[in-house]
Amino acid sequence: MNAIVKGRFSGVGTGPGDPELLTLKAVRALQEADVVAFFCKKGGNGNARAIVDAHLRPGTIEMPLVYPVTVETHKDEAAYQGPIADFFDRSAEAIASYLDEGRNVAVLSEGDPLFYGSYMHMHVRLAHLYPTEVVAGITAMSGCWSMTGFPLVQGDDILSILPGTLPEDTLTRRLEDTEGAVIMKVGRNLPKIRRALQAAGKLSEALYVERGTMLNGHAQRLEERDESPAPYFSLVLVPGWKTRP
Amino acid sequence: MNAIVKGRFSGVGTGPGDPELLTLKAVRALQEADVVAFFCKKGGNGNARAIVDAHLRPGTIEMPLVYPVTVETHKDEAAYQGPIADFFDRSAEAIASYLDEGRNVAVLSEGDPLFYGSYMHMHVRLAHLYPTEVVAGITAMSGCWSMTGFPLVQGDDILSILPGTLPEDTLTRRLEDTEGAVIMKVGRNLPKIRRALQAAGKLSEALYVERGTMLNGHAQRLEERDESPAPYFSLVLVPGWKTRP
Repeated sequence: MNAIVKGRFSGVGTGPGDPELLTLKAVRALQEADVVAFFCKKGGNGNARAIVDAHLRPGTIEMPLVYPVTVETHKDEAAYQGPIADFFDRSAEAIASYLDEGRNVAVLSEGDPLFYGSYMHMHVRLAHLYPTEVVAGITAMSGCWSMTGFPLVQGDDILSILPGTLPEDTLTRRLEDTEGAVIMKVGRNLPKIRRALQAAGKLSEALYVERGTMLNGHAQRLEERDESPAPYFSLVLVPGWKTRP
Repeated sequence: MNAIVKGRFSGVGTGPGDPELLTLKAVRALQEADVVAFFCKKGGNGNARAIVDAHLRPGTIEMPLVYPVTVETHKDEAAYQGPIADFFDRSAEAIASYLDEGRNVAVLSEGDPLFYGSYMHMHVRLAHLYPTEVVAGITAMSGCWSMTGFPLVQGDDILSILPGTLPEDTLTRRLEDTEGAVIMKVGRNLPKIRRALQAAGKLSEALYVERGTMLNGHAQRLEERDESPAPYFSLVLVPGWKTRP
């Protein structure tokens, strides 16, 4: 009986939306993959799958990993933690069964795989068991500040990456105590984020970016944006760099 | 007399070292460039130029922008500020003269152009005057955590990007008050960084990465690294992500 050589497990960063922001390494990893897996919600394959569309070989097996609960459920609730842990376990087992057959599996990750990516849940379950490669991707924040030509941090600046879910006073304190800032998870937190920036004296400098690098993306000064809810793919940038020679 | 159409000015992120971490967009920008400019020290063309070597068209004009002072001079000193501002002014003028002739100029930037990059000094001098494109690049930190498969931040984690030049007590306070951290500018600051991590109770988790994604790059637990000075291309990663489902 011949031993089967295990397949290679890879986490492939697809970047923030513009298919040109894929790296050469990501393109190679996709072309070497027998199976391409991607997290998505019911009823759609999601952004990561769309970004890589031009680079899959004919015959590649596609493996949608469909979230069992919506992101609207609060993540601290037991009602979320149980099903989501089971879902990650089952997804990792399904990937492992392909790897055990000797097939290469690439798991797509919007942005960068190890920077707030769902891929991380597969990584901690599989990377110690199979030959693994993580292909860095352009983060959403990087795509956003590049699209807008917004200089973020320089020299000895501190950059704070903050979730918009933080309590208002915490957000204010942290915005006061940093040079540059990126606020993620804007969505329903937009009014609170605006108040925190105002209290920290930084509202007038802040930039709001929606769907950065995507086809219908746009940016504007946060002060000029209305109070309608922000979509999931939005973030707020606060410039550091004050001491320019 | 015909008006000359101005050339396109672009800032091109080359990523952290591995030439495969160039984006498709960077490759396109390089192939459309008539002039490729890059910052470097006397006596060498620097990393960014080496990374893009395979992608320059024959006949591309190369424009090294050679720093007039070494990075060892303290940046707050007048002896540094004067010459460096002059140097940036003259570099921007040299680039502008090509753009005015209708030639496309790409300025290389290791990592990402608007994230601690020297390109930013050209951007603020030229982007309002010429059609400009910034091509996002993979940051050094992203290259380092991907190379080592080190999960950094997830969910509602805060990530703090800190220069190793901060005073020890500031560094300690900030390391205590964050989930994930990236410490840049390690070099001669390594002993201080180690003490701050120890005081913050995070030394045992910290990873030291030297020349991440480059050919001779390596990573190890910071606790296990000796006290010899660290090179410029090194950083320290501290994991966030504690609440894994």
